[in-house]
Parts: sequence; structure tokens; C-alpha cells
Amino acid sequence: MQKKKISEYGGEAALIDLIRLRYGSHETGSLIRGIGDDAALIKPEKGKYLVATTDLLIEDTHFRRDIIDAYSLGWKATMANISDIAAMGGLPTFALVSIAIDDAPAQYFEDIYQGILDACNRFSVKLIGGDTNSSQNVITISVTLLGEIESDRVILRSNAKPGDAVIVTGTLGDSRAGLEMLLKHGLDKARELAPEAVLRHLQPIARVAEARLATGAGGVTSGMDISDGLASDLKKLCEASSVGARIYSDHLPVSLALKKASDVLETNPALLAEIGGEDFELLLTVAPESVDTVISAIASETGTTAVKIGEITREREIEIVLPDGSTRPLSRSWEHFKEA
Amino acid sequence: MQKKKISEYGGEAALIDLIRLRYGSHETGSLIRGIGDDAALIKPEKGKYLVATTDLLIEDTHFRRDIIDAYSLGWKATMANISDIAAMGGLPTFALVSIAIDDAPAQYFEDIYQGILDACNRFSVKLIGGDTNSSQNVITISVTLLGEIESDRVILRSNAKPGDAVIVTGTLGDSRAGLEMLLKHGLDKARELAPEAVLRHLQPIARVAEARLATGAGGVTSGMDISDGLASDLKKLCEASSVGARIYSDHLPVSLALKKASDVLETNPALLAEIGGEDFELLLTVAPESVDTVISAIASETGTTAVKIGEITREREIEIVLPDGSTRPLSRSWEHFKEA
Repeated sequence: MQKKKISEYGGEAALIDLIRLRYGSHETGSLIRGIGDDAALIKPEKGKYLVATTDLLIEDTHFRRDIIDAYSLGWKATMANISDIAAMGGLPTFALVSIAIDDAPAQYFEDIYQGILDACNRFSVKLIGGDTNSSQNVITISVTLLGEIESDRVILRSNAKPGDAVIVTGTLGDSRAGLEMLLKHGLDKARELAPEAVLRHLQPIARVAEARLATGAGGVTSGMDISDGLASDLKKLCEASSVGARIYSDHLPVSLALKKASDVLETNPALLAEIGGEDFELLLTVAPESVDTVISAIASETGTTAVKIGEITREREIEIVLPDGSTRPLSRSWEHFKEA
Repeated sequence: MQKKKISEYGGEAALIDLIRLRYGSHETGSLIRGIGDDAALIKPEKGKYLVATTDLLIEDTHFRRDIIDAYSLGWKATMANISDIAAMGGLPTFALVSIAIDDAPAQYFEDIYQGILDACNRFSVKLIGGDTNSSQNVITISVTLLGEIESDRVILRSNAKPGDAVIVTGTLGDSRAGLEMLLKHGLDKARELAPEAVLRHLQPIARVAEARLATGAGGVTSGMDISDGLASDLKKLCEASSVGARIYSDHLPVSLALKKASDVLETNPALLAEIGGEDFELLLTVAPESVDTVISAIASETGTTAVKIGEITREREIEIVLPDGSTRPLSRSWEHFKEA
């Protein structure tokens, strides 16, 4: 069917059959009924909470077809929601995905679904439902992710305490650098110039195991995933917890890939790490005596580095300490950053 | 804020605050965490299955802004999903709703949410999450509905047996008549000419209690809701159950409102009942000895009339018996129907 358009392939009905047969999950274990009835049926794990999140992605608002390939689009839409489950400390379990698409090549549609499926499989998530529609000219993807969690391992945004350490997993800013490369150079050239940063942007990986290991180690007081950027998301966490924070610029974890991409972009990697979104790293607050245990627990099982970047303060301000010892408010947008 | 546009009101951030404060559910009972963290947290009812369904609605594909008011749009998008939970025999519990909207008047956005909230409240559903975005010029609404159900009260599409009675609740064709009126006369005039049919189209009500009463009475072998029309949906049920069906034209339940609207539209009410979608009535198959019990159970508690319209057959064909005793295949579209 590679070169056929969706309309030639048989339209919506054919797509739905394709999804059910090729991408739908087998009805085993806790999945009693998947795609093909009025709704999916799940047997919940005894004694666990259910976690639920949803995202709506619209072409030209959230993504541009010319700088993301179909496979990455499906992958990323799914992974962003898996990351929300991880951010609560949960294990992702089931996905419902709706797509509205214009009369694109059927192969394009298949590639989106393969991305969705591979992102699901990465974390043993089953695809159990959804909706497929035609649209005039804009692709829309809605993903709902369900997960499960033990009641004593929930990570909320609202329990950070003054004196807690602020830690983040992995490295920050890579995804934003990838995006800037894509905007400036287009898909093919950007991949050539900064393959790692571009891959971080197009096919992020949620920190599911890392969050589980952190709560398993104990001492985590609050947390979320970094989807809008450290500056924006730390602000949300501080507001939810009625606290402030002090962050150290030279503690922000910056990858070699970001440094390379920043050279090409002629920009400052530390600033990209401060404001860049969609890294889907974890932002956690941890009681001071538990910082080392949490960082070791994450590293020993996953190899992922987590670092302390600052601490929670009583004063409800968020400031960043620069290498010269001066401080300024944490920047929250590209605009502030350019003015700075 | 009535006449302000969304952008003047404060954009997405202001809308999200509005939703959380005015429409978000209180964190009581089984809702541990609602809107405002990375994901919602729910404590599932012990021993019950979880039911999950989702729908994506796109302007000009699924609805037209000129013939549905904002309140009805929110109501209907929500109710269609509640109906899917009802069709499984479940009780709806939680909703996640995402909206992408252009820079419409803020009041328009509020009206959509009021419709969503009222539809939720009609069945004690709590709004626990979602996503709000700006779009270029097309409204998109994605609704995910969760529900719960006892494992022995699930209604699937796949267990209909030859000899079972086919029953439907309420009346058929009203919603389609309402739609035809709206298309022909516009919102205001159609409401004047055929208020009941138009209301059935704009603000349908899912048959939650009726499905529960039917499974409580026993003998229900399969079922679904009628969203695409009796002809289309009975075909799906028969395919899932590997059976056929014989339906009697003069048994199709037709309302006085439909007859009146059909007069104005100069069409045949029985044919509208055969192909008309979005009535959100229940289509059930019932063991012959249980038909009366099921029909009485539904009527005694809800006042809703359910009637037998035919029976399931071994031959995998779906035919309709006309008043003169002749038979023909069940029509599945307006086109077939006009040719007939």
C-alpha cells in the first residue's frame, strides 16, 4: 500500500481494520477487551491507583510536518504522555490514540502508527482504543495514557519543602537545540549537523524506571517531568508547593551534543538548558539526607546520571546563581533570554 | 468576560485556570488528584473492571459551528462517550477533555465547558483532566471517558446467538431528522419547526440506567449503542457475533416528533429510523425467554420503553421485513435509501 493515498486504500474503515489487526494489543493479562467494541475493558491491578493523562497535538500549533517525520510524530506524541505517567511515579499500562488526518499517503499514516506502537512497546504499554478520522488538511493526534501506581509511591508537585535538594535526570536543553537546528536547517540537514540533539527532540525517552527507582530509594518529596523547560516547570512545582528555589547555573547538566549544537547555533548551552522544553527529564525534590541514595539508585540500575542543581527555599522566588556569583530570576522564555 | 475574545481574556493559561477552578472536580471519594498535576490519580473500585473509551471530534468533519451551539457541542461530545460506557453495561466515572479552539469569544469557550460539565453531572461523572490549546481556525474536541463495571455485567458485541430477540430502547431516527432540519433550515428556524427532534440531535442522553437495568434483569447476550444508525450498528454487532438478523420495519419505534419532522422534511419516518445515527439508544440482543423481564425492568425504573424489533438468525444476512411482507437488505446509507 506504500504509495496509495488513504482514500485509495479504503478510507477510514480500512485504517481502523489495519490498526486493530496490526497494532492492536492481544487480549491477555489485565486487558479483557481491546479495540473493536464500544470501549476497552481492563482489570485493574489490586490495591493500586489508576493514573490518567491526555494530550492533544495539532499540526502547525505543536508540530510541523516538514520538520518531523511521521514515525517520530507518533513516537513523540505517545512518549510525552508516558512521561506524564512517569512524572507521577507510575508505570504506564494502556494507551488510547485518536488521529485525524488529511488524505496523506497511507504509508505516512502507517509510519505514525509504527512510531506510536514502538513507543508503547518500549514501556510495555498496550494500545487498547482510539478513533480515526479524516480531516481537511491538518493532522490532529490525541493520546490518552493510563498507568498504575502504589498509593505510597505517588510523586505530586505539591510537597516540596524548604531545604530539599532539586535534582534532575539526564541532560537539559538537547531537545530545544534539536528544534532550533530543525527550524534553521530542515530535517535532513539538521540530522546531519546535530544527530543527537535532533534525535532527543524527535524521539525522546520518558524516565519511567528512573522515577520508580527514585521513589523506591525514598526521600522524594515532589516532582514532575520537564516538558515546558526547567524554568517554566520549576515555577509550576514551586507554585504547587508554595516554595521558591535557588538553582546554580554551572550545575545544570549539559551534554556534549548540546555543546556541539550550540556551537553551530552560536548560542549558549547553559541558557538552552535553562529554558529548553521537551527533554522529558525528571525534576525531583529530595530530602537533603536522601540525595545521594536517590542519585545512586537511579545510576546503578539505569546508568542515568542525576545531579543536584539547587535547593528549595522558603522565599517564594526562583533565582539562578551565575558562575560569577551574581543572581537573577530564572528565565522563562527565549525572549527574556535574548534580552538578558 | 462575555464579549472578550480568548486572546484578550488571557489566552490558554487563563482558560486552564478557569477550567480548574470552575469546572474541575473536587478531590473527594475515589478521586485522589484531579486537574493540576502531571496526571490524574484515581482509586479504582475494588473488584471492578475499568472501561475506557475516546472520541475525537473535528469541526467541519463531525460538526458545523453554524448548526450547533457551543453548549450543545460540549454536551454532545461528552455524552457520545458516556454512551459508549453505557453500551458496555458500565457506569461512567471520570472524563478527560481536550479542546483546541481558535480565537473565539471567551463566552463561546465557557459555553462549551458548561455543556461538558452538565453532561458529566447528569451521570455523576467527574472532570479530571485535559488539555487546552489554540488552533488556527478549527475547533477540535477530544473526550476520554472512564467507567467501571462488574465483570459479570459486561455487554460485548460478540455474544449474540441465533434465536435471540433484538431489542432497542426509546425511539430511532429523531436525531437524524433533527440534523436534516438543521441542515435545511439553520439553527433557529429548525428549533422552531421541530424542537424535539433538534434537541435529540443537539443534546442526546445516554442510556446508562437502562443498560444497567437490562443486565440486572439477566438474559442480555450482546449489545452496543446506536451511534451510526441501526443498519450500520446492527451490521457491526452481527459481524462481531458471526450471526445475521431479521428486523421488522413496522416494529421500529418511531416518535411523534419524528413523524412531525418527517412531514416537514417530506420523508419517510421508518426509513429515518432505519438509517439515522446519533440517537444513542441501546441495541441489545436478549435470550427469548428473558425479553419480557428485560423490557419490564427498563420501563419500571426509568419509564423508557424498549421494544423487540426482530431476531438474530443463523444465516449471516441482515434483512428487513416490510409491511407488505416482502424483504430487502437493511439499508445502510442515505444513498441506498434514496435508490430504494
